[in-house]
Amino acid sequence: MKKIDTLLECRWIAPVQPRAAVLADHAIAIDGGRIVALLPLEQARLEFAPQARVTLPHHLVTPGFVNAHTHAAMTLLRGVGDDLPLGRWLNERIWPLEAALVSDQFVYDGTRLAALEMLRAGTTCCSDMYFYPEESARALRDVGMRAVVGIIAIEFPTAYATDAEDYLRKGLGARDMFRDDALVTFTLAPHAPYTVADSTLARIVTLAEELDLPLHMHVHETAHEVTESLTQHGVRPLARLDRLGLVSERLIAVHAVHLDDTEIALLAQRGASVAHCPSSNLKLASGVARVADLMSQGVNVVLGTDGAASNNRLDLLAEGRLAALLAKGVSGDAAAAPAAAILEAATLGAARALGLAQRIGSIEAGKDADLVAFDLSEIETQPCFDPLSHLIYACGREQVSEVWVAGVHVVRKRQVVDASGASISAAVMAPLPAWQNRARQFLNVPA
Amino acid sequence: MKKIDTLLECRWIAPVQPRAAVLADHAIAIDGGRIVALLPLEQARLEFAPQARVTLPHHLVTPGFVNAHTHAAMTLLRGVGDDLPLGRWLNERIWPLEAALVSDQFVYDGTRLAALEMLRAGTTCCSDMYFYPEESARALRDVGMRAVVGIIAIEFPTAYATDAEDYLRKGLGARDMFRDDALVTFTLAPHAPYTVADSTLARIVTLAEELDLPLHMHVHETAHEVTESLTQHGVRPLARLDRLGLVSERLIAVHAVHLDDTEIALLAQRGASVAHCPSSNLKLASGVARVADLMSQGVNVVLGTDGAASNNRLDLLAEGRLAALLAKGVSGDAAAAPAAAILEAATLGAARALGLAQRIGSIEAGKDADLVAFDLSEIETQPCFDPLSHLIYACGREQVSEVWVAGVHVVRKRQVVDASGASISAAVMAPLPAWQNRARQFLNVPA
Repeated sequence: MKKIDTLLECRWIAPVQPRAAVLADHAIAIDGGRIVALLPLEQARLEFAPQARVTLPHHLVTPGFVNAHTHAAMTLLRGVGDDLPLGRWLNERIWPLEAALVSDQFVYDGTRLAALEMLRAGTTCCSDMYFYPEESARALRDVGMRAVVGIIAIEFPTAYATDAEDYLRKGLGARDMFRDDALVTFTLAPHAPYTVADSTLARIVTLAEELDLPLHMHVHETAHEVTESLTQHGVRPLARLDRLGLVSERLIAVHAVHLDDTEIALLAQRGASVAHCPSSNLKLASGVARVADLMSQGVNVVLGTDGAASNNRLDLLAEGRLAALLAKGVSGDAAAAPAAAILEAATLGAARALGLAQRIGSIEAGKDADLVAFDLSEIETQPCFDPLSHLIYACGREQVSEVWVAGVHVVRKRQVVDASGASISAAVMAPLPAWQNRARQFLNVPA
Repeated sequence: MKKIDTLLECRWIAPVQPRAAVLADHAIAIDGGRIVALLPLEQARLEFAPQARVTLPHHLVTPGFVNAHTHAAMTLLRGVGDDLPLGRWLNERIWPLEAALVSDQFVYDGTRLAALEMLRAGTTCCSDMYFYPEESARALRDVGMRAVVGIIAIEFPTAYATDAEDYLRKGLGARDMFRDDALVTFTLAPHAPYTVADSTLARIVTLAEELDLPLHMHVHETAHEVTESLTQHGVRPLARLDRLGLVSERLIAVHAVHLDDTEIALLAQRGASVAHCPSSNLKLASGVARVADLMSQGVNVVLGTDGAASNNRLDLLAEGRLAALLAKGVSGDAAAAPAAAILEAATLGAARALGLAQRIGSIEAGKDADLVAFDLSEIETQPCFDPLSHLIYACGREQVSEVWVAGVHVVRKRQVVDASGASISAAVMAPLPAWQNRARQFLNVPA
């Protein structure tokens, strides 16, 4: 019998690779943070002597979800400007509050809160874009989550940095700080076509190639962005990005709501990814991305929650359900974006986009053990004919019972725990009242 | 001090009437199943001597949700035909399975399951449309839920009834059975324009007036339905219904996805209601109802989950969030369908549509105590600037902590309980494996 750290005995496993597979009564053997075998339960019991054995008799186990786009720290501004038109939301709420509040501590405290919410919703890795990326990385790692952190670039000054050069220098410094943490990787994150100059984008393309980093950027979020670009640059934003060399398999085009057929073909041809954020796009009235068309053209569609100021949940399963429903409703094809495609978008597709497909995104021997167990035994998921379609159409985040990141059991019975097994919720929530009061005072909102 | 049954001491209350109000640190006094007072906490403690005092220090209390359209028993077919085009979904899955399985026992067992799911999601009342309505009423009442049951009419025979006349006779008989239960009321529920003949509809209009009942009917769900009616009747379905006298304030037009401006104006002018079922409409690729337009024209828009075969959740809060997001994304106005309007649609609006506005739908003295407490203290709802927008945009059904129906405390700490306080989940789930096996055998699907 081989000694291993952990054996998960699962009623069902959706390994993602091969797509749409569901294995009944299988086990996952974990050792040294990695998956060492995926095999029938009876066989696993004969073959392995685990230190910890976890019985998941009513559960579906999937790869950990990968949230391809968020601004994690903005959980501190959750619900601060709901039901406002986009202009008022930005000008009266988000931008003034960010100018007043954002600091290293804000990013650390807000990102820890976000990380707990994401872990409890089955997300084991997120691609973040915000100021003070070193604080975002530190917060995500502190609570046991895998981090992909954006080296943000934007032309205008903030408390964090003075100009694009300063943003890049600081972001690259953050990358150096985490070079020894295998669970932290980086993207280059030019904010958007309308906030980053050509010269900065050219520099970023060079850096991306030198350092082998993905490009994480808001692209074609609103119709306004497209028309403004036509006025200022004479071309649509994606054409400008393409001229500058950004449209490649490195690109994660976030939102990509307003695309014409030529642009979808371009993204497909170049092997770019689209990070679809359906809740945010609807809530800010940006529109609906053409997901059925993107998928049918072979574009790698992945999923993001966006920040909690425009969603207001960091719940990738909710985004997956919404993506599946919207793709059907808007395309008129009830077979569009089926459950297996959505699960792949939330896992292996995002891992591919982030350059992590060799390590995460599917349940295969050799990959890191980033795993989620969904309890399908409750009223809400009974009866169960197909655990995979149940995951997307019937489950909520409340069905997430257990989560592992690189083999570490970080969520136990819905509680995010530390190494001793104690819940860390209270510690993560402790700084919140002070931030809430500062935001309220600034907005002159009564408690 | 006045003796009362129960005092709820609430951090926040959203009484719905007046719209958008949120009361902080207020109490709800309940006696004999009714709300007897809504007043500041300190005052309530001086004024009332309750038998039971419930402390809700981190909670938002709202009126119980009213699910305006469901086929409750279809929970037994949850997820049985996902990701299929509408035609295959109906012809290969739903209709054959219904023909093979539906019986009085199927309706009772399926509706009890649905009722537990709805109660745990804050729904205290549902408007059901299915075969064997007496079994649906019995099941809903057995687990403590308020019931509005459709007297279904359809021209073709089923195990339940032979022809429209037989459906109506049996449905009216069901109504007689429950005449002494104040928590059961009825609608007349002609299935759809394409399944009910003019003569039957004329009979139903007469019955509705004689018995003072609402009309609960699928209307303009698909584009196909509209074109077929043009072919067969020379007019669109709504025009045909109007000619027959069905378009009045009694009408709850379910789905109403495909409406032109004239039809929206007609519904507004007649005071009809629309039961919007956004998940189902998207999932079956029917389209998106024009909710922002309906609301701005003054149509009473209410919310429904539809059945679990096309959703697959009986979760009115999820429908509310989706309705709010879709209305914004499709209309291009981020201020469309604000949180307060959605809460009203899920409560008082539906009560109005069902003729129950004098008894439920808002938290006011004299109304029945149908109430839900949402716990806003968890990670997912922190920080909290506005409990009402949090309810719609951040909460999930997992935040539902306590539920009362007519003053009876039916959900305690997320468990549906009997009079002794014991959970009834196991009893409700006991018949499920047998139904699941029968469905699997019929479909020739392996376990």
